[in-house]
Amino acid sequence: MTSTIDRATAFGIASTPSDSVQLNPAALAEVLFGRWAEARKHSRELLKRDEFHFVPGLSMAEHRVRVLGQLGRLVEEGVVHRAFPKHLGGEEDHGANIASFEELVIGDPSLQIKSGVQWGLFGAAVLHLGTARAHDQFLPSIMSLATPGVFAMTETGHGSDVASIGTTATFDPDTDEFVIDTPFRAAWKDYLGNAAKDGQAAVVFAQLIVAGVNHGVHAFYVPIRDGADFLPGIGGEDDGLKGGLNGIDNGRLHFSGVRIPRTNLLNRYGDVDENGRYSSPIASPGRRFFTMVGTLVQGRVSLDGAATVASKLALTIAIRYASERRQFSDGVGDGEIVLLDYQRHQRRLLPRLATTYAMSFAHDQLLEKFDAVFSGEQDTDEDRQDLETLAASLKPFSTWAALDTIQEAREACGGAGFLAENRFTQLHADLDVYATFEGDNNVLLQLVAKRLLGDYARRLAKPDAAAIARFVAGQVGEVAVSRSGLRALGQKIADFGSTARSIGYVRGEAAQRQLLTDRVETMVAAIAARLKNAGTLSPADAAKLFNENQNELIEAAYAHAELLEWEAFTERLATIEHDGNQRVLTWLRDLFGFTLIEKHLAWYLINGRLSASRAAAITDYIDDRLLPRLRPYAVQLTEAFDFAPEHLRAPIASGAERERQDEARAYYRAQQAAGTAPVLEKSLAKKAKADGGEG
Amino acid sequence: MTSTIDRATAFGIASTPSDSVQLNPAALAEVLFGRWAEARKHSRELLKRDEFHFVPGLSMAEHRVRVLGQLGRLVEEGVVHRAFPKHLGGEEDHGANIASFEELVIGDPSLQIKSGVQWGLFGAAVLHLGTARAHDQFLPSIMSLATPGVFAMTETGHGSDVASIGTTATFDPDTDEFVIDTPFRAAWKDYLGNAAKDGQAAVVFAQLIVAGVNHGVHAFYVPIRDGADFLPGIGGEDDGLKGGLNGIDNGRLHFSGVRIPRTNLLNRYGDVDENGRYSSPIASPGRRFFTMVGTLVQGRVSLDGAATVASKLALTIAIRYASERRQFSDGVGDGEIVLLDYQRHQRRLLPRLATTYAMSFAHDQLLEKFDAVFSGEQDTDEDRQDLETLAASLKPFSTWAALDTIQEAREACGGAGFLAENRFTQLHADLDVYATFEGDNNVLLQLVAKRLLGDYARRLAKPDAAAIARFVAGQVGEVAVSRSGLRALGQKIADFGSTARSIGYVRGEAAQRQLLTDRVETMVAAIAARLKNAGTLSPADAAKLFNENQNELIEAAYAHAELLEWEAFTERLATIEHDGNQRVLTWLRDLFGFTLIEKHLAWYLINGRLSASRAAAITDYIDDRLLPRLRPYAVQLTEAFDFAPEHLRAPIASGAERERQDEARAYYRAQQAAGTAPVLEKSLAKKAKADGGEG
Repeated sequence: MTSTIDRATAFGIASTPSDSVQLNPAALAEVLFGRWAEARKHSRELLKRDEFHFVPGLSMAEHRVRVLGQLGRLVEEGVVHRAFPKHLGGEEDHGANIASFEELVIGDPSLQIKSGVQWGLFGAAVLHLGTARAHDQFLPSIMSLATPGVFAMTETGHGSDVASIGTTATFDPDTDEFVIDTPFRAAWKDYLGNAAKDGQAAVVFAQLIVAGVNHGVHAFYVPIRDGADFLPGIGGEDDGLKGGLNGIDNGRLHFSGVRIPRTNLLNRYGDVDENGRYSSPIASPGRRFFTMVGTLVQGRVSLDGAATVASKLALTIAIRYASERRQFSDGVGDGEIVLLDYQRHQRRLLPRLATTYAMSFAHDQLLEKFDAVFSGEQDTDEDRQDLETLAASLKPFSTWAALDTIQEAREACGGAGFLAENRFTQLHADLDVYATFEGDNNVLLQLVAKRLLGDYARRLAKPDAAAIARFVAGQVGEVAVSRSGLRALGQKIADFGSTARSIGYVRGEAAQRQLLTDRVETMVAAIAARLKNAGTLSPADAAKLFNENQNELIEAAYAHAELLEWEAFTERLATIEHDGNQRVLTWLRDLFGFTLIEKHLAWYLINGRLSASRAAAITDYIDDRLLPRLRPYAVQLTEAFDFAPEHLRAPIASGAERERQDEARAYYRAQQAAGTAPVLEKSLAKKAKADGGEG
Repeated sequence: MTSTIDRATAFGIASTPSDSVQLNPAALAEVLFGRWAEARKHSRELLKRDEFHFVPGLSMAEHRVRVLGQLGRLVEEGVVHRAFPKHLGGEEDHGANIASFEELVIGDPSLQIKSGVQWGLFGAAVLHLGTARAHDQFLPSIMSLATPGVFAMTETGHGSDVASIGTTATFDPDTDEFVIDTPFRAAWKDYLGNAAKDGQAAVVFAQLIVAGVNHGVHAFYVPIRDGADFLPGIGGEDDGLKGGLNGIDNGRLHFSGVRIPRTNLLNRYGDVDENGRYSSPIASPGRRFFTMVGTLVQGRVSLDGAATVASKLALTIAIRYASERRQFSDGVGDGEIVLLDYQRHQRRLLPRLATTYAMSFAHDQLLEKFDAVFSGEQDTDEDRQDLETLAASLKPFSTWAALDTIQEAREACGGAGFLAENRFTQLHADLDVYATFEGDNNVLLQLVAKRLLGDYARRLAKPDAAAIARFVAGQVGEVAVSRSGLRALGQKIADFGSTARSIGYVRGEAAQRQLLTDRVETMVAAIAARLKNAGTLSPADAAKLFNENQNELIEAAYAHAELLEWEAFTERLATIEHDGNQRVLTWLRDLFGFTLIEKHLAWYLINGRLSASRAAAITDYIDDRLLPRLRPYAVQLTEAFDFAPEHLRAPIASGAERERQDEARAYYRAQQAAGTAPVLEKSLAKKAKADGGEG
């Protein structure tokens, strides 16, 4: 990693670790791999093979064929059945399943998402919404990929608002069948992976109608193709080329009088018996709907993880390049400065590195929670709701952060960053849609905000609480309230109040926690205060009032997500045993916390939480202390992500840039040594002037 | 534009213009077309034709062929020769040339950039760096595209720091030739449009060496291919697939002992005579270099304009869709709410619409300045430097804003926004590199900051001024100082000082100007104060000090760019005659100004420019006043961009979404009217409860 002709420092900043603080990237890598390290490493090992790599320049048709073939290979390698029932050959290991799945993004995000469509959505819907009869009937051929399938939830007219979809499944008692219909164009199923070409069956979400009563959205197993041809009554279209993920054949489907047996209803949360009577273990249609949709949370969980892996990739490439690429001289030595020694470049990359560490640790907590719920270890309604809120908080944070990080990494590598071979542009193109699928980020944050409001309302004096609770319940359905507060806020509320103004220090962990937590609490309380009379208003006025606070609501939910990320980083930090790793990661966590506080400095000032001088000190501390301290460890901090060259596959992260730089400098030095270097006209002019001549 | 089943308002926000304030989009369109309306409209007319449109899904090879063919068609249509000498068939109309060229982004950014390579870089280098002999010899076949050419400036090892390129052109007096050499791998020319395939000649930038003296970077006309084959001594590589702009064949070139006639030196700013003596009209090598590079400013100018056109396209599509797309009910009417009525959606799109208007008006000023310089109307050194600073300020602002706007527009359209057919993803992919080519945005802003510092230093008491001036000069070459201050700052400095704290109003134009200007001034002064002893420090310590302020320097330059954008909007506003347009654009300008102030609120608070209560009022004013006021005019404000359906080419901006929504609502209403609508289980349960039963 060192070169004999490097200067140890530029601008007085150390570029290599000091003797007193040594990072151990290998030990840190184990921390980052987390509980399901084995599953992750198994995926990583597979992903070293060319056969699982994205090939730039394939046509859409070729890319689709390649990715379908890769899915078949994943079946053969036995990595995609971990979540399924043991008696069908699975392992019932939900955490390991998601962990290994997330890593697929390294090979090709299309491979990740198409696997997700087949086993994480289509298969998972049969698993979680169906009962034993559906498991035994449908899962084997889903697991083996004999039946590639479609998760047909979204419609052209309804994405985020699933409850309002138009597709109907009407029970026909005469034939003991459901009849699936698409009543109008907006109710076509749309953006569905596997729908354009490969899908042989679909889990179709539709309004279940029995004897003139609509029981709400349920899921049905519907065969859609025989080989390449649609079955009678079914039609569709190819969504065509997309901004990314073109290895997946997204498309549209519509249904006209398509008949399926009554038993094709996935009947865990709602069933129709031989006598045509509807029943459900969940009496409330609203709660039933949210419970059904909630079983599909793994999509959001895995996007959070995949976005984190992609950020790690992008930063590993950009930071490696920044540590070798030289541009402009400082006029001191004979060499040019490596990009990573420039303050601006550190500002661009190091806070994003800190954010990525936070995302990694926060994701571990999310995955723990997910595994606890789906393994049945901790599976109360409250656990499920906490899991959903956690996923709805972290997924927007990490998918946006990944796009921002990949883009900044791309720009930080200049023209080289724009070449397809260096990965950034394709990662950005593919991950773009992560921000709006499996729940649009803004919609998810609004759901989180409503949960926060509901939790807050429960802690208030009765009359206010009831009013807000009623109002929020009206907005999101009853699941949002009457549940315990989120842990992070629940624990911290006692710390708050007037003390926030008197903090005599800003740097410590406690101060960071206090500032970040206080902001969430105060924002939620302020919005709640504004909404407290909503219950007494007309529905139109209440809706207007709510809309007038929508932007701030979403900002509050985002602040909550930031806090969760910071808490996760901090909790993990406490468990790190290696001294050097502890020390460096503390700086990195501080950089994350300070960057968040700096971003919201106006809020802290307006609300009297920080004085102007303390606020200014935040920026100084980042620039003058944290960035220079972390700079020597930046490359090692990415080495701890433990990507092999076959994972990175970016020529600019291969050491080629260092070779080129070394060759160029050796050339000029040899020329100087031999006395063959041309004289600069400028020096000549100066010399002439000094000699009193004209030059 | 209206539908009988629309509600006029949702959330109490008017969705259609009021009778008292009417916008006239047609009149506004003329304002936006600006001085070179005719040239822009001529391009727009051509761009309605399919032959100039990007075709999604083409392979790189097919796309390259298509774009080269389009360039030939542009020659036939006579739209690409406007800048060239009249005696060669051009019009010597520089402003019109850039205006018509920028619009090409509507057809395909690859078409725009490949045209730019041929006529704006390769051709313009011959035009501006060459003299009559080069014009007559080389321009005709460049203009006709008989000689597709390469602008060979950037090297693998040197992008932003052009002065340090490694390629050499050594004069051989024996043969009266220059010998072009690539001394090492990092000196390969790289990322060059037309280099991989189409280029027959190149303008090669190289260190000019005569008799052992290096006279710095000069440009040479070098034939590189005979048909498909490289000429002797020349080699290269294809850069391959890129993140975007794949209609352009970017590649690498290297030279080994390539001989060209002495007269192939483009000799306007430096020449070697028959006797092998070097001469230049500009004595200082530093100033000479900056003058040569400065003649190529049109690349930056046109990227600023093209980024603006692309933002207009993206917003037209997203705002049209947001005005028709419905999602979620407010529980009041029977319909769902159009996205544009949601506060968050307004927050996402309307400030970006305001920014795009600012970019459009600021670009007009830049183009005026460009035309004045290149027409010779106002062509002092000072004019040229002001032009360069203006271009270096606006190009980073607009290219970043375009990426941000396109991405937000994409996300605001959800899954539909991710389909290639709806344009956003390709626009983002193509414009991505605008942020780092023709001058990396961060590097450009640093140059602007140094100019601001230099200007500031000249106004200080002598000793400090000299120290800063010397130091800055050392950093960027002598052109940066000893020139007049930028107009915007020069005019406003008198307004400043202690008055800033006592402003009793925030809303007015004067207050916005004061806040924005004061921030630039104060930031620059603060940095200057920190740098004032730089001249007394060792070079290493001075470099360290400068680097410690680098991030803030760049932030100051960005603040200056924001001010220029705001001033341009405000100046144009004053000239608008139509009352309704004036009124609505004033709100839009206020939204732009307030959004900028809100973004930097922490700075205003820390520096005592705004009290906490005034600061909080900024956000309230945006949310409660400006967004609701502007919402009814949002669609019309994009109609004023005057794109034809053939320019938009996005199905979601075609009215299809409204049709789908209307059809769906009509279906449900008919069902209600006929009494065939299923009863909701929820209503049934409620009814049963009310009846005292169990349901």
